[in-house]
Amino acid sequence: MTSVGEADNMWYLGIDGGGSKCRAVITNLEGEVLGVGTGGPANPLHGFQKSLDSILDATNQALTEAGLTTSHLNQLIAGVGLAGVNLPALYQQMNEWQHPFAKMYLTTDLDIANIGAHDGKEGAVIIVGTGSCGFVNSNQEKTILGGHGFPIGDKASGAWMGLEAIKYSLLALDGFAEKTELVKKVCDYYQVNNGLALSEQVAGRSSRQYARLASIIFDAADKGDIKANQIVNQGIEYICRMSEQLLKRNPKRLCMIGGLARFIIPRLPTQLAEKFVTPLAQPEIGAIHFAEQCWTADHKQSA
Amino acid sequence: MTSVGEADNMWYLGIDGGGSKCRAVITNLEGEVLGVGTGGPANPLHGFQKSLDSILDATNQALTEAGLTTSHLNQLIAGVGLAGVNLPALYQQMNEWQHPFAKMYLTTDLDIANIGAHDGKEGAVIIVGTGSCGFVNSNQEKTILGGHGFPIGDKASGAWMGLEAIKYSLLALDGFAEKTELVKKVCDYYQVNNGLALSEQVAGRSSRQYARLASIIFDAADKGDIKANQIVNQGIEYICRMSEQLLKRNPKRLCMIGGLARFIIPRLPTQLAEKFVTPLAQPEIGAIHFAEQCWTADHKQSA
Repeated sequence: MTSVGEADNMWYLGIDGGGSKCRAVITNLEGEVLGVGTGGPANPLHGFQKSLDSILDATNQALTEAGLTTSHLNQLIAGVGLAGVNLPALYQQMNEWQHPFAKMYLTTDLDIANIGAHDGKEGAVIIVGTGSCGFVNSNQEKTILGGHGFPIGDKASGAWMGLEAIKYSLLALDGFAEKTELVKKVCDYYQVNNGLALSEQVAGRSSRQYARLASIIFDAADKGDIKANQIVNQGIEYICRMSEQLLKRNPKRLCMIGGLARFIIPRLPTQLAEKFVTPLAQPEIGAIHFAEQCWTADHKQSA
Repeated sequence: MTSVGEADNMWYLGIDGGGSKCRAVITNLEGEVLGVGTGGPANPLHGFQKSLDSILDATNQALTEAGLTTSHLNQLIAGVGLAGVNLPALYQQMNEWQHPFAKMYLTTDLDIANIGAHDGKEGAVIIVGTGSCGFVNSNQEKTILGGHGFPIGDKASGAWMGLEAIKYSLLALDGFAEKTELVKKVCDYYQVNNGLALSEQVAGRSSRQYARLASIIFDAADKGDIKANQIVNQGIEYICRMSEQLLKRNPKRLCMIGGLARFIIPRLPTQLAEKFVTPLAQPEIGAIHFAEQCWTADHKQSA
């Protein structure tokens, strides 16, 4: 697909950069995986330089695993999908990065997740992990739903669930609400027994920290805790509405990905749950597809 | 009340340090105000060094207004009331500050607000501004209710109200909720017309920024907006519960202070609203009382 002269000794780099970590994969031009790597948080909204560092850390690991070195950075055709770059200002700032690659194609983490989940074809995804978001690419039109970040958006996400549980626990510990089993579990998790100590444990923490409470909340809900069920049901209702909105755009396929998918899908109405199919590949492989698609299009144009 | 030898050429400094700003007042040993000053944010939880800088900025302004200079810093008996130091670790860190004053007595911003509101006597206060909190000092026992900070606590506060309005607006702009008048007002305020632009405007902003929406929300509620009324009513319910809990401790007086007090008191059930009396002095004057009380007690001990 690539013009032979330019493509000699070149590789694809796929980057999936989210708020928690950054994954890199290097493939040859035939798409065979040669090396992978993992870096730190890579949402430029929460630190632009940190994002660049995480991308390069993950890339360097992948290079090493592929038997390559940093001297090959300028032979990488990079597809980079990042959280945060749905904000136009951040997209522009990141796109102006003096990157060390042969070429960098930038898009959102949602876009590459979607490309990966549907093996390069059109479709829709709901991502529910630390954050939450919906994305659909149908008839060449891309739409993002939700995904406005913590604490203003990302309903149904782990961070949202954790924040709701903490807010309720603080009210209960002050005597303003019932001290249900969930409150005891939250206190046990942080090894505290009063609101002051709890607030001290969680004040200023990242969305990832809040998201760690999600499995505790699902567990409490299963055991009949009223507040945990209320939180879970609010989340499920939101995911149902998001699914409806995505399905209205007639995507060819619909997937749910992210750490909470396995908790949420069984809780959806059966008729809706059945519409979700298995994602075909990881987002970082989606980033490879994206790099390949963009590179090929560039070469068609210049041919 | 002070021993004459030591108290020659000494003054009281009162500091009220909150998340938005820091107020300083200098009085002579008879309590006459000689100078005042204002500094930046002084909640050490959101920046320890910034807090120290704000305290010193405000103090230096007050010194100048009092006709004194920085050479008099070591002749000030400081009563310092700060947000955040209800957290034991922050209290300790702040108390270990190598301050330039003759003596520093440290307590919470709540304590000095309460002392000020009741002219040095016991009582209770509810503070509702950017944040929210309850405090009662009755029978020599001090209790704090709420005040766990943004976004985990501070229900009914301006920041909490603003966050609720933003969360709802983002849902509505994504088609997940009704686009009420409140949503239009929030969009007008930020001069945006979609969720992406709105999230870009508010992402990572301070609690103060969110709190600026409070008057818009009260206004929309007055005009019958369903969502604005829901937010306001949830806040009012919380303040009612907090009032009940404070009144259970039999405080001699009960005051409500902070920027939202004038919106909230008229919305309380009349029987409850009537229990609130007018605060007698500002928190920074409470800090002066506090300094005086502590200094006097120290001298009684050493006598």
